[in-house]
Amino acid sequence: MSRMPVGWLASAVAAGTKTSRGLDLALICSDRPATVAGAFTTNRALCAHIQVCAPRVASGAARGVLVSAGIANAGTGDAGVADATRMAALAAEAMDVPTDEMLTCATGVIGGRIPVDDIAPAITEAAQTLSPDGWKEAANAIMTMDTRPKIAARSLEVDGTTVTVGGVAKGAGMIAPDMRVPHATMLAFITTDATATPETLRAVLSDGLPRTFNAITVDGATSTNDTVLLFANGASGAKVEGSDAFTHAVHDVMRDLAYAIVADGEGATTVIRIGVRGAATDIEAASAARAVADNILFRAAIWGGDPNAGRVLQAIGQRADVTFDPRRISIAIGDVELVSAGVEKARHAEAAKGLGGPEVLVAVDLGLGDGTGEVLTCDLTPEYVKLNADYRT
Amino acid sequence: MSRMPVGWLASAVAAGTKTSRGLDLALICSDRPATVAGAFTTNRALCAHIQVCAPRVASGAARGVLVSAGIANAGTGDAGVADATRMAALAAEAMDVPTDEMLTCATGVIGGRIPVDDIAPAITEAAQTLSPDGWKEAANAIMTMDTRPKIAARSLEVDGTTVTVGGVAKGAGMIAPDMRVPHATMLAFITTDATATPETLRAVLSDGLPRTFNAITVDGATSTNDTVLLFANGASGAKVEGSDAFTHAVHDVMRDLAYAIVADGEGATTVIRIGVRGAATDIEAASAARAVADNILFRAAIWGGDPNAGRVLQAIGQRADVTFDPRRISIAIGDVELVSAGVEKARHAEAAKGLGGPEVLVAVDLGLGDGTGEVLTCDLTPEYVKLNADYRT
Repeated sequence: MSRMPVGWLASAVAAGTKTSRGLDLALICSDRPATVAGAFTTNRALCAHIQVCAPRVASGAARGVLVSAGIANAGTGDAGVADATRMAALAAEAMDVPTDEMLTCATGVIGGRIPVDDIAPAITEAAQTLSPDGWKEAANAIMTMDTRPKIAARSLEVDGTTVTVGGVAKGAGMIAPDMRVPHATMLAFITTDATATPETLRAVLSDGLPRTFNAITVDGATSTNDTVLLFANGASGAKVEGSDAFTHAVHDVMRDLAYAIVADGEGATTVIRIGVRGAATDIEAASAARAVADNILFRAAIWGGDPNAGRVLQAIGQRADVTFDPRRISIAIGDVELVSAGVEKARHAEAAKGLGGPEVLVAVDLGLGDGTGEVLTCDLTPEYVKLNADYRT
Repeated sequence: MSRMPVGWLASAVAAGTKTSRGLDLALICSDRPATVAGAFTTNRALCAHIQVCAPRVASGAARGVLVSAGIANAGTGDAGVADATRMAALAAEAMDVPTDEMLTCATGVIGGRIPVDDIAPAITEAAQTLSPDGWKEAANAIMTMDTRPKIAARSLEVDGTTVTVGGVAKGAGMIAPDMRVPHATMLAFITTDATATPETLRAVLSDGLPRTFNAITVDGATSTNDTVLLFANGASGAKVEGSDAFTHAVHDVMRDLAYAIVADGEGATTVIRIGVRGAATDIEAASAARAVADNILFRAAIWGGDPNAGRVLQAIGQRADVTFDPRRISIAIGDVELVSAGVEKARHAEAAKGLGGPEVLVAVDLGLGDGTGEVLTCDLTPEYVKLNADYRT
């Protein structure tokens, strides 16, 4: 594993909230005070944890986050909010840090409460087993339908001092993050040992979202629980205000984690990268790319080895918020241009040969302006349907 | 089969455009002049046939429609428009009717041209074999991924005279019609032996769309080819201007065909009827119902026998154009209320017992106003993905 930031600790225990009975409770915490910025889902059916977490993140100061997997604690009303509040308090108490500096997140089945009494001993155990080496276990504990843990890190030099940015994330299903700062069930927790104000962290996080977490989709479903947190504890001693290199490092970690979520989307066998140029605006380009990414006909075709440019054309033609001229659009899949000036060429067999790898590129040119955008998704497979039919059981 | 309208003939032949080599070219025609109204897809990547058909429908006079299945003739540019024009001309010539009174539709793979030279003899054959008894074959010929033909009819008395309304349709995939009069790959062709002006037909068709064809979705993909045509040839001698009974009969036929399309959606095993009330407006209610119908996580859960109300909550919470208060929503699946005032009850096992039939009712009350709406969809199954992975081959 890559080097992770100095002064940051992680742990994971089995609290019993996952039916699998494996690791399901993670704690990430700084050994000293830290600053924080967060981004949360725009879904109005907000989970209890975000209701507790968001105001605390707004203060700009937080030490860490307790993450529970198996039960989303959404659709639980006031009782769920009380549960989340108590979970954070139990963690804060076990670590002897101020209660309002402990954050809490959850992921899992919507509906149903987290049995806080039952998991209280596990929260204490998580606090007692925090370690600089606990990241892999923590990344495992926060997984639900994920098949592998997601960890990314970058180190850079700032004024001669090494600064590290590290992150863990989980994804798999109900993935179409649409997060706002200060307001994603993807979860991502990024830490750094840089010194940074909450304002710097917010700016860096906000700038990074549109082309990282908010540019991925597995199934078009924006979760009630999506959360990204970016923490800085200053342990390196390096100040990163105005450092482009730091911003890039954070964005690189965000991009790596976002990619890992799509690549491990439920049932996925390939990443589909949809790049749009020639749009009237960047927003319209992103919207056109989203239209293709949300089209389950096209995603199923890719799983079947069928570079179905007709479904790309249909998807964009349907999207009312994208300026579109059917006589100007061109579409390439892999290296093969399949549609030119709105007319499909007979190059299907050629394009089909390019499929089957870990990633396929769909390049759309709307032929209208300078707007560009990109969305990442994955193929739609029978396994996706089976996983979601059996999710609760 | 039910009685079909007087003076209307249908036929079907095998032209070779379907890879299956079965019936794939249908002709529907009146034995006398007729009036017409039409509704067409709002997808801007408009197929060639609609480009030819829509202006002719606007004239209000048409005798019939030639329907080709296997190739959508979309994404084919000017050459495709010339092909569609020639197909209509060949049919008109074979029947000795004015060219501009012959309409034409297509459904199938987007991209690729219809080999008009090759199918010209089949067009002539279709004209020569027209019969009052050809409906079942015609309904079969227009199918692509459909597993069964879709025919509906109603008869009523108007001033002592029997009037009949009959329709055929096809659906299966790429089904999320959003049609406008004068501007739906679902195809539906409705005929009547009533006497009706084009204006009357347009009004009846337009009134019927929002709660019939435009209220169904199989996969959220609005086709480049969706078309509904409503013809009247006056053979019964009954005038139906202002007849509510006639309007209801047409709407009943539209509703029956729309239901048949959802019930035969690609891979579908059950119809999901999503009814929303308590919305701020009827439009918001329909939008909320659409959000649930478009949620593949929920549709997969229904296939799995999981009445996952949490995914209903998530879907509506995501939909920005619906006024939503998480503390007021209630959700019932079948007869079991699962969410009340935004909080999920532990009645999952009870609700699960109600699944497994041909239809499941999802009843959402947003608790805000008087708006009501309904959308019909079907469960999402592994078979859907497999069918669309193999569609072209």
